[in-house]
This record gives sequence, C-alpha cells and structure tokens, in this order.
Amino acid sequence: MAAGSSFGNLFRVTTWGESHGKGIGVVVDGCPAGLEISEEVIQKYLNRRKPGQTRYSTPRKEDDLVEIQSGVFEGKTTGTPISMVVYNKTQRSKDYSEIAKYYRPGHADYTFDEKFGFRDYRGGGRSSGRETIGRVAAGAIACEALKQLGVNVMAYSKAIGGIEADTTDVSFDKIMESPLYMPDIVASHKAEKLLEEKMNEQDSVGGIIECVISGIPTGVGEPVFEKLDANLAKAVMSIGAVKGVEIGAGFEAASMYGSDNNDAFKMDGENVSKKTNNAGGILGGISDGSDIFLRAAVKPTPSIARSQETVNRDGEDIEVQIKGRHDPIIVPRAVVVVESMAAICAFDMLLESMTSKMYNIKKYFERI
Amino acid sequence: MAAGSSFGNLFRVTTWGESHGKGIGVVVDGCPAGLEISEEVIQKYLNRRKPGQTRYSTPRKEDDLVEIQSGVFEGKTTGTPISMVVYNKTQRSKDYSEIAKYYRPGHADYTFDEKFGFRDYRGGGRSSGRETIGRVAAGAIACEALKQLGVNVMAYSKAIGGIEADTTDVSFDKIMESPLYMPDIVASHKAEKLLEEKMNEQDSVGGIIECVISGIPTGVGEPVFEKLDANLAKAVMSIGAVKGVEIGAGFEAASMYGSDNNDAFKMDGENVSKKTNNAGGILGGISDGSDIFLRAAVKPTPSIARSQETVNRDGEDIEVQIKGRHDPIIVPRAVVVVESMAAICAFDMLLESMTSKMYNIKKYFERI
Amino acid sequence: MAAGSSFGNLFRVTTWGESHGKGIGVVVDGCPAGLEISEEVIQKYLNRRKPGQTRYSTPRKEDDLVEIQSGVFEGKTTGTPISMVVYNKTQRSKDYSEIAKYYRPGHADYTFDEKFGFRDYRGGGRSSGRETIGRVAAGAIACEALKQLGVNVMAYSKAIGGIEADTTDVSFDKIMESPLYMPDIVASHKAEKLLEEKMNEQDSVGGIIECVISGIPTGVGEPVFEKLDANLAKAVMSIGAVKGVEIGAGFEAASMYGSDNNDAFKMDGENVSKKTNNAGGILGGISDGSDIFLRAAVKPTPSIARSQETVNRDGEDIEVQIKGRHDPIIVPRAVVVVESMAAICAFDMLLESMTSKMYNIKKYFERI
Amino acid sequence: MAAGSSFGNLFRVTTWGESHGKGIGVVVDGCPAGLEISEEVIQKYLNRRKPGQTRYSTPRKEDDLVEIQSGVFEGKTTGTPISMVVYNKTQRSKDYSEIAKYYRPGHADYTFDEKFGFRDYRGGGRSSGRETIGRVAAGAIACEALKQLGVNVMAYSKAIGGIEADTTDVSFDKIMESPLYMPDIVASHKAEKLLEEKMNEQDSVGGIIECVISGIPTGVGEPVFEKLDANLAKAVMSIGAVKGVEIGAGFEAASMYGSDNNDAFKMDGENVSKKTNNAGGILGGISDGSDIFLRAAVKPTPSIARSQETVNRDGEDIEVQIKGRHDPIIVPRAVVVVESMAAICAFDMLLESMTSKMYNIKKYFERI
Repeated sequence: MAAGSSFGNLFRVTTWGESHGKGIGVVVDGCPAGLEISEEVIQKYLNRRKPGQTRYSTPRKEDDLVEIQSGVFEGKTTGTPISMVVYNKTQRSKDYSEIAKYYRPGHADYTFDEKFGFRDYRGGGRSSGRETIGRVAAGAIACEALKQLGVNVMAYSKAIGGIEADTTDVSFDKIMESPLYMPDIVASHKAEKLLEEKMNEQDSVGGIIECVISGIPTGVGEPVFEKLDANLAKAVMSIGAVKGVEIGAGFEAASMYGSDNNDAFKMDGENVSKKTNNAGGILGGISDGSDIFLRAAVKPTPSIARSQETVNRDGEDIEVQIKGRHDPIIVPRAVVVVESMAAICAFDMLLESMTSKMYNIKKYFERI
Repeated sequence: MAAGSSFGNLFRVTTWGESHGKGIGVVVDGCPAGLEISEEVIQKYLNRRKPGQTRYSTPRKEDDLVEIQSGVFEGKTTGTPISMVVYNKTQRSKDYSEIAKYYRPGHADYTFDEKFGFRDYRGGGRSSGRETIGRVAAGAIACEALKQLGVNVMAYSKAIGGIEADTTDVSFDKIMESPLYMPDIVASHKAEKLLEEKMNEQDSVGGIIECVISGIPTGVGEPVFEKLDANLAKAVMSIGAVKGVEIGAGFEAASMYGSDNNDAFKMDGENVSKKTNNAGGILGGISDGSDIFLRAAVKPTPSIARSQETVNRDGEDIEVQIKGRHDPIIVPRAVVVVESMAAICAFDMLLESMTSKMYNIKKYFERI
Repeated sequence: MAAGSSFGNLFRVTTWGESHGKGIGVVVDGCPAGLEISEEVIQKYLNRRKPGQTRYSTPRKEDDLVEIQSGVFEGKTTGTPISMVVYNKTQRSKDYSEIAKYYRPGHADYTFDEKFGFRDYRGGGRSSGRETIGRVAAGAIACEALKQLGVNVMAYSKAIGGIEADTTDVSFDKIMESPLYMPDIVASHKAEKLLEEKMNEQDSVGGIIECVISGIPTGVGEPVFEKLDANLAKAVMSIGAVKGVEIGAGFEAASMYGSDNNDAFKMDGENVSKKTNNAGGILGGISDGSDIFLRAAVKPTPSIARSQETVNRDGEDIEVQIKGRHDPIIVPRAVVVVESMAAICAFDMLLESMTSKMYNIKKYFERI
Repeated sequence: MAAGSSFGNLFRVTTWGESHGKGIGVVVDGCPAGLEISEEVIQKYLNRRKPGQTRYSTPRKEDDLVEIQSGVFEGKTTGTPISMVVYNKTQRSKDYSEIAKYYRPGHADYTFDEKFGFRDYRGGGRSSGRETIGRVAAGAIACEALKQLGVNVMAYSKAIGGIEADTTDVSFDKIMESPLYMPDIVASHKAEKLLEEKMNEQDSVGGIIECVISGIPTGVGEPVFEKLDANLAKAVMSIGAVKGVEIGAGFEAASMYGSDNNDAFKMDGENVSKKTNNAGGILGGISDGSDIFLRAAVKPTPSIARSQETVNRDGEDIEVQIKGRHDPIIVPRAVVVVESMAAICAFDMLLESMTSKMYNIKKYFERI
C-alpha cells in the first residue's frame, strides 16, 4: 500500500525516520493492556542490533537509546499506542553531496528517485538499515507479550558466506557467545576468518538466518491468503537485504519425495505430535503445535569499498568507491530483526486466532 | 486476519468454496472499469490448472467451466465487483466417512480441527487445491489488465524432483510443449521418467516454479513493509504446497560476495539499466525496470497411496493408505497459480504506485 | 478504497451483483466456526426487505430466495467463507435503452458515468437498492451470532414524512404489526394516510430509522479512529439513501447544556449503570453497557413519476418521468438493512475487543 | 480494529500520545512526494485549536509547537512517513489521584477501565481532546495537498447552544473574525452572551459545526461500503464529542418529499450541474462536482464545575465537582478538527479514485 510503513492488523507496527534525520521511531498500536514493559527491557533487544559491538560491524558510535513516549503508564501498557523513538546523534554529519548524484549498486537510490522524484540521500535515508531500529523496538514488545503466553522466538546465524553452523543443539547462550550470533563456535571461527579475508579484499559476505518459534499453540494462522507462513514470509522478506524465505524443509522439499517429506503424526501421551518436522510447524497455513522453523537468505552488504561501475543522475556511466566504514556483513545485526518480525507476525496472528470458534467466544464473554 | 480469504488492497480478490461443496468462487473487487474480459479468456487460464490434462494429474473429470456473475457489462468490466464461479460436478461423490476420522500426514486436517473444532472433510474442504480455481480466475483478469499496460507474467516449472530445466531461453510456446510446463524438452523428458518411476512406487515428487514479470515500470512497490518482494513472497507462499520463495539470486545470494552480487548500473541509450540482475528486478522493495524473477519451492503431493503412520480423532496411532487417484506432482498445475498470484500482487501494487508523486497527481487531475 | 464492496475487519462482508444481473451475492469471511445457521433462518431476515409485501413497496415479484454455497457443513459454520446468493428472476426484463441516455435526479447515474466512464444502467445496476440483499444475508448471520452472546439488535421506523412514532415501549411484535415497521399503531396509520396522499401526487416520502443494540458487553470499540460510534456511522451511512446518522441524543445534544446532557453514573446493585442515556450507550467510542441507540435519516425515494428536469448524455436539458412502479418510501424495507449493518459492525468490533487485555488473553490460552 | 489509532488507506494517519504524557504525535504515511510543507504552515492550523486563544477556551498555557521529525527533506515531502510531535509542557502537573478513583460523567473514564483494566487517568489520558493535535497536524498536510489540486476545505460554527448562524455567504475572513469561528457576527455575539451566562452557571454548551469541501472533482468515493459520505461520517464521528453527522439536507431530508429533495440536473455551459444541492455534493457515495456539505453535532463539554452524581471505583455513589478550568464549549476549537478529518478523508479517497478506469491508468503509465 502507498502507506507502506505499517505491519500487522490487530497488533500494528508503524515505523518512521531516516538514517540521518532527527531519529527513528515506531508506533505500536493494538498492544493489549497490562503488559509490563520498560525502556530497559526494550534496550536489551536494541543492543543486539547496535553498531560497533564487534569488529564486524561499523564502528559508527550510536548509543541507540530508546525512549518510550506514550502508551505505558505505571510500568504497564495501557492498550493505547506505544510510541518509541531513538534519536540520531550523527544527524548533521558529513557531506553527502557526492552520493546524492549517483546510484549505489545494490541500494535503493535509483528506485527511490524513480518512484518519488528525489530522495533523502543522507546515509540511505528511509531505505537505510537504521529503519530496523523501529522494528526491533516493536519486536521487543511482541517477544515479551509472547513470553507471557509461553511462546519463545529465537533467531541466529545459520550460515555465513557458505559456512554452515551445526544447529542441532541451540541455546540463547550459545548464540551470544559468537560475535556473529552463530551458535556453533567452530563454524563461527571459520566464518570470522572468511570475514577478515573479505574485509581485506574490500568485499562483503552474505548468509542465512534461522528463526525458531516454540510453544505456539495450535490453530494460529488463517486458511487461504492469511496463512501463518505467508505472513511470516512477508514479514521477513520486508527486511531490506533478505532475498529468500523458507519454512521447514523449504527449498529442500522441492527435491524430496512425498514418502520422505510427509511428517507422520503420532500420539505423545494425550497429545498429537509429529515424528518429523519438515512442515516447519505449519500445515495448511495453521500452526500445528510443533516448533516453527523459518530461514531467511541475506545478501552481502551492497556497500563495498571496491571500485564499482554505476551511473549518475546526469545519465553518465561512472566508477565509484563507496566511502565510509560499512558492515562487511549484515547477517549478525539482522538476527534480532528477523526475530522481531517473526514475533510481531506471530503475536498478531495469535491474537486473531482467538475468534475462530463460537464456543470459545461464548466462554470468553461469559467469564468477563 | 480472521477473515483470511482476501488478497490485495486496491485490486482485491476474495475466494470461497470447498472442494466438494457447491462450487468454488471468487469476487474481484476494485478492478478498473473498461477492461475487456470474457469467460472465454478466463477459461484459457483455468484450463492450464484443470485436472486430467496429462497422465501426471488426477483423471478426475471436471470441466471447471467459469461463469461470470457480475461486474462485466457489454463485454467490459464496470469497476464494480466481478463475481465468478465454477460449480462442482462431483459434489455428492463418494463416502468420506473414513477420512473424517483421521489426520492425513502433510494435510491441514489436524490443524483445521484444532482451529475450528471440526472440518468439512470432503476432499480437503477449504484447504483443497481446488480453492486455487478462484485465484486463477482472478489472476486471469490481473494478467489481462497488466497486458494492457505492457506487463507480462509468465511462470513455468524450473525443476522437478531435483531435475533442473535450462531456462536461458524461455517462451510460452516452449512451456506449453511440455506436459510438465517445463520449457526444456530434454529436462522435461527426464522428469517425466522420474515421475513414472515414483508413481509406480506410490510416491510423489516436488519441484520449483519460476515466474518472470517483464515490462513492469520502475517505482512499483512501497518502502519498508509493503515492499513489492515482500508482497510477492506472501502471495506465493499463500499457495498450499509452497514452502519457500526467493527473488533474483535468492538463497544463492547468501553465499555470494558483495562484489559478485551487486548489479552494476549502466546507461542503455537514455535509460538506466543493469549489467546483471541478481536483485531480480527489485531494489529496496521497488521495481527497478528489469525483469522480476521469483522462484517457489513446491513440496511433493502429500496424498500418496503408500502406507503412512498417523493418528485418528480418538487419539490412536494408526496406519493409512490414502485412497483415490491423486496427482503424483503438484508443480505443473500450480504453475498458473503462481502466475496468478504474482499478477494479482503486481497489478495491485502498480495501481498503488500511481499516487507516489504530487506532480503526477496534479497532472492526472488536470487531464481528466 | 477502490475495492469498496467489503465491510469489517475480523468479520468481513463482501457483496457483489447488480439489480438486473444474474444475482446478488455476498461472501461472509471470518465468521467463527460452530454457529448453527440455515437458509431458513437467513430467509426470515430477507423477507423483511422483500418487495411486494405491502402496497407501500414495489409489486415487482421477486422471491429473493437465498442459497448458501459454502462455509456451512452439517448445519454449522466451518470458519471459512460463507458464500450466499439470491438469483435474479427478472434478469432480462424490459428495455432500458432510454434510461441509459439520461441521468435520473437523486440517483448515482451521473456519478457512475463520471467515475467509471460508463455504467450498467439496467435498474440502477450496482447502485440499486437490491445490493442490500447481500447486506441483509450477512446481517442475519451477525444477528444470530450476537444472539448467542446475549446481544439483540432491533430497528424500526421512528418517523415517516415528519410523523414521529412514540417509541417508549417497543417490541418486535409491535414493529411487525405495522406495514411500515413503525411500532406505534396510531402514528403508523397517520403515516399510511400521508403515503396514500403522496402516492396520488406521484411523490415520495422520507423518514427516520432507529436501531437499538441491547445486551452488548462493556468495552466494545476502540479509542480514537475505530470508535464503535464512528464505525456504526460508516456502516449506516453506507446505505444508499441515508443522509445522516446520530447516536444517543444526537443532534439534539448540540442545543443542550452539559448539566442536562451528561448521564450521571449510579450503582445498580453491584453494577455501574447510568441514570439517563444521552450518550446512547457509547462513551469515548467504547460501549458502556447501556443500550446503544442510533438513528438514520433516510431521504425520500428519488424515483418519482412526476416530471423532473435533468440532462442527458448528449449534454441537453430535458424533462423526464421515471416510469415503472417504485416504492413511494424506502424506510420500511431499509429497517432490516440498518439492523444488518449495525449487527455486522457490532459483531466485528465485539470480536476485536477480545484482545484488549493481556490478562484475558492469558486466561484464554490457558483454557484452550 | 484493536489497532484503532490509524485512519485512511493510501494516505494513512496514525496518532499517539496522552494528555499528560510526553507529547502528542502523529505519523502521516503515504503522503505523495514533492509537496512543499513546513512547520510554519502546519503551526497555523494548530494555532486554531490551541487553548487560551479566547476566554471561551481553557487558559491552560500550551504553545503546542509542532516539530517535523521525518519525511520532509529540503522543504518537500519525500513520500515516506512524516512524523510530527507536539511535546507537552505541563506533563508532571498537579495531583490526579482523586480523579483516578471515580468516573467523570460524559467522559471515557469508565469505559477505558472496563476495556483495559486500568487507565492513564492524568487529564483524560488518551481520550483527551489533546489527541486531536495529531489529527490537525495531519489534516494540515491533507489540506495543503488538496489546495494543490484546487480543492478547499473550510469548517465553521454553524450553531452554538441553539443559536444558528446565517451561512449564506461564508468566507475564511468572516470565520476568523468571530472568537467562536461563527461566520455571522450577530449570531456570534448572541452565542457569546449565552456562553457568559452558562459559564456563570458553571455549565457548558454544545453546537453544530459545518464543513464545506469545494472544488473536488467528480468520481471520488467508491460504491457500496466505501462511499465518500460513509467515510466522512466515520472520520467526523471519530472526534470525541461528536454525536451526529449529516450530509447535504441531512436529517431534514427525512421529512421532505421526493419532488423537493431531488436535485434537478441542468447544463451549465458544457458542464453538468445541479439546480439545488440537497444531496450535499455526493450521489451514490461518489462526488458529483458540487460542494460537499456536512454537519457535525457536538455535545456540550462534559467537564463542568457543577456538582454531579457519579460512582467511584469502589462501587459507591458519590457527588463530584470537576475541578480545574475547562472550555465551556468544545465547538470553536473542534472546527479545525472537523476540517482536518474531512480533508484527510477526502484526500485519501481522491487518491484512490485515480484507479477507477483502465483508460486513465494506461494514459498515466504512457506519460511517465
């Protein structure tokens, strides 16, 4: 929609702000009342995407301190919009006049100019990765609300530059041990070496982020167009550098046979469970009670110091070197962004699933 | 959303109907007035997903004849809702009482029961592949509207059971030559052989569908959450058997370096173009004027005749053989469904892109 | 929205069809599963708007029989879209070529031509009152669902041609005793006399419809833009002939003083109640537990047999007499339409109100 | 919707903030790029709703200075979200502990508590009239955009406490001459006298606001549910104190006859026009090119100093006097709020009307 900065229906997130404007903000509307939340809790999530944490991210000094401006009273959400903002410190900053004149390969400079006639060229403007601050602040609230319902969302680096992590036994602690948020210390070291190499070559690296949603009740997601997987795909694909999304076995399922790919049901005490989880926890677009698995393919950072061919606004072929210091890889800082989008989407659809049965609705209104 | 059977904002599609109910229908609302359309034109699209076309699809005899019920007057769309219906012929059909009692692996039986308390178990009910009839009828209208604007949408089988087609030179004729809609006759033959083999083994096969949108103007898609690729991902992931979606280089980009993955801009006469198209025609969520490429991973048909383990509604572990004759592969019949969803999404967002600049809006209202 | 034929968010209604097309239909999506519903029940609602019931409505013979096409299985809603249709009997009908050429005063002929370039001129096409068949069929489902929750929606003629009914003691039976659905037999007789007079003068009459929603729990409606009264106003104003909507004291409140208009709260046993109800059951856009009162101003039927001045498509001033037999008043047949729109809106917002508190959401998911 | 703080589809406004929180803000998303806008221009609109302008509004000293935080670059809108904020000066303020314990008659205290379990009780929290700051800031942008297209939106006080203004010849200057924004100096004086009287009696007064949208092209508004008048009704009814909305002849039409109420069409040179405008510029939900007239009934200020009966949170009947100084009338300050909501709604629907005809869409994309 022309108004493209909102996501979600009942739990709706609207972000605003440019990389080098006054700040980056988000309004979270439809958050149920009575959730305990604070700037401290949200800050923890934001710190995971903050620049300058490791040598694999830009050393741009931003504290990225979040401020809650509305919707929280006496430590709890009031049910009305929660406005949050992170003010930019480096607003004025350097001279961007050169970048204004040409189109950086792999960036949205050209398409913004084509769509809007001109663009806020300072540091990528609205298409900058800084926009994801708003997503993470909103995602923090979704994550905290989900926790209250026994649902946990956890993302990590599954692969970097083709080096894949063994993820048979992942924990939050393992994830946090790696500067790349890769829960396999051997693979993480290999990846770090590759990154050093590519940084020396003035190049950049891509990777895959995996996200697990556990504890989600059955019945979340709507048939046909508003399937849980369809909305998760949109949620995650809306992150700037993501070029692919898959659920469960994903693209691998395309070369499997039905007898391998089908997950057999089995009784687990009184509960229905599955012997395998190629479906990734979603059948017919609706959660089946298993863990939901999704993976996002993240392209290498488009900003590289190497010389590149491009064109300028005067229609001339030119060569450019993107100055400044840029992350040689987007993946680690995008981990919490994927987590956030998955949480926002899952919480929104979980709320919607409350209205699926007359029986439950009657019970609900009898009780209150 | 709890109301999950609609897709699109300005051009909005709402499907209804169950596999063995009275029929499958769709309401297309927001279609601009004055588009020439007829049942004959729409039927051509529907015939591409009709069962019984080849020996690789179920021989269930359904004519799937579409009837336009509203919104078209004197051969042209009126701007009001276009209701279309395909009545089911085999409505009463056989006895489904057995299938009612257990959960078919890989199907939505269990999740529908969990979500809604019970389900229309006849032939999959609402989660049946027959629901896509409505998508294709709507997609036909989107495709015809896009053609008027010089935009062409074309999908085909990119891979079947791991056998990949050479798609360097695809045409609609080449696609139609293959019973599997695979525009590479050598690969198609190989795939047909694999299918025969797997049919004998009472098994099924998955594959990959690729879709190309060509001729789309620059500037389609909105920044942040309503990116063109995000909406395409949702559109395509909402198709029952799809487990993954990628744009341009997709998952391959995850193991590329920035210097390879970035598409250099270059002047092509007076126009900006790109030397490569790893971006798949979309930068920052907005069309860049190149062809848009997307691929969908389709899982193997879950209905297989082989014995499978599952549970019944009484909570018992059982073994079942899914009776009846089922497609050994979903891919070929889903090709036109992917095409339809891509067209619906692209047309909707193209309409929305008309409001991006005040200058254009002023020009528009000066002219009318 | 360009796609303007849908109403509601979680409980969403989409109508289609033209006055003299194949039929009039509606798709109800998001209806909770497990609601007992049948064509017989829905038909009762439709019969209240059917033409030819009294001499104050057009004697056009239409049975207006509803057919359920999907979404109901074994007598209960399945949670998937409920498609309903009423086929038109008089589809081919008479010659409309004359009406095609000019613009009837008070109708949408001119604005449809301006907006869409042409129109389906047969009997008003999409802007015909017959479109409301879809609303009533959907409204019937909303009413039945609300009844399950103890909520009752009841509308009636409050005034006709300036003759006002005494509505201090209204019941459904009283409403049904009057051919004008006016629950005051003395006023009804007066209004009938006025109607006879105006019919002789080839003229038409307007009136006011009042609607009461009783039994609705507190807490329905959202602050700010999605207020319950704001959505009710939209719902009711979207009915063709409605030119005004008011809640509670409505326009009278504009000439009251705060000391009169404020409703004092008082305890009623353990419950909070109000001494008066000028607010009409809504405070700050949220239901307060009192009866909700709304009134709609309905203009006189624009189709009158008297000679009228207008213009034709060739840009000439002309005089016309609208041929055919038309209702001399819209009000009585619109009563059930107002009831339907109020019910659809109230049920949709009631569902949404389930997600307002974390505490309730936790309780809900603990129980299921 | 549970997320109730947004209005509009293509041009979408989201407000946030509480009366005594950090500030009141709004995010305007989907505003076309290239519109010249500045804090100065927006401030002019805000100054019309600022308190303390006359003795008929609360003397609370708030500068209500707006700050643009994003979406404007080099003086022009960029097409991305425009975030605006007015920081509250009197945030900490006095002791609200008493007001926290009871429910003010005519306010949303009780319904907020019922809906959300508790409320931000400081000065009305989210349900305070201060929320409309966000609406006016957004409305200013809509008004400025509409001006570029030759559309003008103008509201004024039509009646105050039953005293009606002669509005046969209204101008912006006349409106601004009256401290009550009543464009009839005689009526304004009478109303001022009534206000003095009622202020002495510790009472408050209601009134009617009229709004005229002139210059709007034909074809704006969608048939059926998204009628222009239906959306205007929602837009205006969503303002806190509004209890009724009417278009054109409105409630008067209910006692008119068809022969009086129908507006005859006539040629005006080459253009179709109407001899009268009882329709208020909208036929079948679509603008007909005449001026659009709407009126809103505004209730008297609920906060009055007189003693009132109510209940407290402990379920006791009590008497209260609302302390502090409150506006004795809401109408004058709400004039610009009605104007804003009408402008937001009209601009949104005007954008949507661009996609009604294939012919125009083709022309549009040929040109760009």
